[in-house]
Amino acid sequence: MALCKGGRNVTILKVSARSKATAVAGAIAGVIRDVGHAEVQAIGAGAVNQAAKAVAIARSYLALDGIDVICIPAFADVIIADQQRTALKFVVEPR
Amino acid sequence: MALCKGGRNVTILKVSARSKATAVAGAIAGVIRDVGHAEVQAIGAGAVNQAAKAVAIARSYLALDGIDVICIPAFADVIIADQQRTALKFVVEPR
Repeated sequence: MALCKGGRNVTILKVSARSKATAVAGAIAGVIRDVGHAEVQAIGAGAVNQAAKAVAIARSYLALDGIDVICIPAFADVIIADQQRTALKFVVEPR
Repeated sequence: MALCKGGRNVTILKVSARSKATAVAGAIAGVIRDVGHAEVQAIGAGAVNQAAKAVAIARSYLALDGIDVICIPAFADVIIADQQRTALKFVVEPR
């Protein structure tokens, strides 16, 4: 998992198939608490699976703080090693 | 992909790794237009990937009707061939 700054002051969490879902969930919850909005980006089935599980777990973490988050899946074009790839991103924000 | 009736008059769309994302997206959009609420259920990374892509595509279909949908990922225990498995479900509903 890697954190980087996107546009509009959005923190993008890059998730791989080897990312631990609970660790990503903790990061999502932290970013939501800090700035109220997070983007989780994944390329490939294994990474998307970890990202989706992480959002489900983050929901339970944030519910303890009374924060009810929803997610919006969308495609995103990203450049990796000069190659264009299609990522799936989950925008996570309070309902 | 299989459609079945869940509780609370909810239609559950069961997605596999071999499901076509655009076909699932069309089914999600149809269910949302009909009853305003759908659940997409997937077991395994390949299935979760197809389900997440389908929700992203369904969002674009429904946006054409002026319907802005969000999704809520959650874990669900399901019984398959007398074995308990953990599925990931995406609840899809208007924002």
